Amino acid sequence: MSLLVTGSIGIDTVETPHGRAPNVLGGSAVYFSLAASLFGPVRLVGVVGDDFDHAMFDPLRSRNIDLRGLEIRKGSRTFRWHGRYEGAMNEAHTVDVELNVLAERNAPIPAEFHDSRYVFLANTHPTLQRECAEKMRGAKLIVSDTMNLWIENELDELKKTLKIVDGLVLNEGEARMLSGSAHLVKAGRAILDLGPKFVVIKKGENGSILVSRDDLCMMPAFPTTNVVDPTGCGDCFAGAFMGHIASLDRVDRESLRAAMGRGSIVASFVLESFSIQALHRVGIADVNARLAELRAMMQFA
Amino acid sequence: MSLLVTGSIGIDTVETPHGRAPNVLGGSAVYFSLAASLFGPVRLVGVVGDDFDHAMFDPLRSRNIDLRGLEIRKGSRTFRWHGRYEGAMNEAHTVDVELNVLAERNAPIPAEFHDSRYVFLANTHPTLQRECAEKMRGAKLIVSDTMNLWIENELDELKKTLKIVDGLVLNEGEARMLSGSAHLVKAGRAILDLGPKFVVIKKGENGSILVSRDDLCMMPAFPTTNVVDPTGCGDCFAGAFMGHIASLDRVDRESLRAAMGRGSIVASFVLESFSIQALHRVGIADVNARLAELRAMMQFA
Repeated sequence: MSLLVTGSIGIDTVETPHGRAPNVLGGSAVYFSLAASLFGPVRLVGVVGDDFDHAMFDPLRSRNIDLRGLEIRKGSRTFRWHGRYEGAMNEAHTVDVELNVLAERNAPIPAEFHDSRYVFLANTHPTLQRECAEKMRGAKLIVSDTMNLWIENELDELKKTLKIVDGLVLNEGEARMLSGSAHLVKAGRAILDLGPKFVVIKKGENGSILVSRDDLCMMPAFPTTNVVDPTGCGDCFAGAFMGHIASLDRVDRESLRAAMGRGSIVASFVLESFSIQALHRVGIADVNARLAELRAMMQFA
Repeated sequence: MSLLVTGSIGIDTVETPHGRAPNVLGGSAVYFSLAASLFGPVRLVGVVGDDFDHAMFDPLRSRNIDLRGLEIRKGSRTFRWHGRYEGAMNEAHTVDVELNVLAERNAPIPAEFHDSRYVFLANTHPTLQRECAEKMRGAKLIVSDTMNLWIENELDELKKTLKIVDGLVLNEGEARMLSGSAHLVKAGRAILDLGPKFVVIKKGENGSILVSRDDLCMMPAFPTTNVVDPTGCGDCFAGAFMGHIASLDRVDRESLRAAMGRGSIVASFVLESFSIQALHRVGIADVNARLAELRAMMQFA
């Protein structure tokens, strides 16, 4: 079924203990789309400047990703991020960031995408997320991401957005900050009181949990030992999560749990290279092989 | 089957955001024994001073715990620990500690315990652990705990001990310190090279992993929201883990994994009160009920 993502497209320079990748493709919408496209078609909405090298998008063109929502803004420059991970690579340190097009305005959602049944609003200002959500009122499921910046500085706007989305995906630090609760299950339940029907809390190497009114699911991370670059991991989790739900075209306990498993697996692939290199080589058979491995690691009598 | 534990018996004063418990029963051997006794008989070896109030041991007497290895040392004082947990209670801050009897010498292992098939050496100086392990050479399984203090200051002694034990239980920070690897699966595998056939790495609220030459198992923590006092959590995990293995009288992939599940559950009960109050009220039916809940939280299609 039709899945739409609005998010960033960026040119990243990333440094990790494993090396340095200058000027590579990045951005939440890119990672999300590639991950989601493993499960079905994706509609990408995002904006780049006229400095963007379109050959960078070739890996997306070979997938089932509809690029009619890609705006190339004349006279503007593409979003750029320079980040560094150290030690256990749990946290990105921003060396430099140029918002460029992202500081201007959202890319418009093309009219032919307005019938999308599944919508993911990658992290951006909650007011912009709400504008998109309001345009997509006919969708069956709208899920958003957020970040500490908005929780700290735009809490009222974020709360208004949370009242109209169906699900929220965020990391454990953000969940604690938003809820005021250190215990993640309590944090998830407190966030449900703000509006969403479910919350997915990502814990990096410690997996993720899904909290809804009638369910609690715990999903380990697939423990790949080949961790090269964590950039895009959370967006790939969300992409696989939404992609699998859209492919099932069902939003219930079972589909949400199944989607958690796919999120965990696809996130484990993107870690294994800089940018989208590893993810781009992956097919659904690879996903299913790791899913079987993950299941085996969780078995006990 | 016969399970022996050597470890500390203490009088604890514990402060958490939920209150203060002065002069309550604690110590690794106490928590371990109560947890293990849910699955079968336990032989406790430990020492207290003549200041010890024996009524404190009544909860142990009503369980299947053989106290013939309890030494009451005349003229000595019992080990005392005063700790404080703050915020998310992830870490204990020691306010005060009096080693007392623990600084003197080990309690002797009674001759009638020498035939024990399963042995757990709770955390103490690795040289003392090795002395015990050498006395128990006929055991089918010897597992030890350790801590950062010995990794930092007694690494050569610890390595000698690791060569003669079958399994090691430690927390994630200790596993990273001992192995030099931030990635816990790599850390576990590096520790296997030091001698043990398996390593259990405890991650607190994030569960635990089991690493052996031919297996990798991931176990979530049971997510109780009623967290009052984390003291003894790791010892209860180890007690349930060893108790379940001893009850099966089998050391293989399946029994180790099943034991991980029991460890996770029993640890979740001890969190729910100060000292042993909650744990003491628990029976095997409660353990099995939470096991079923945990399994349900891990299911996905």
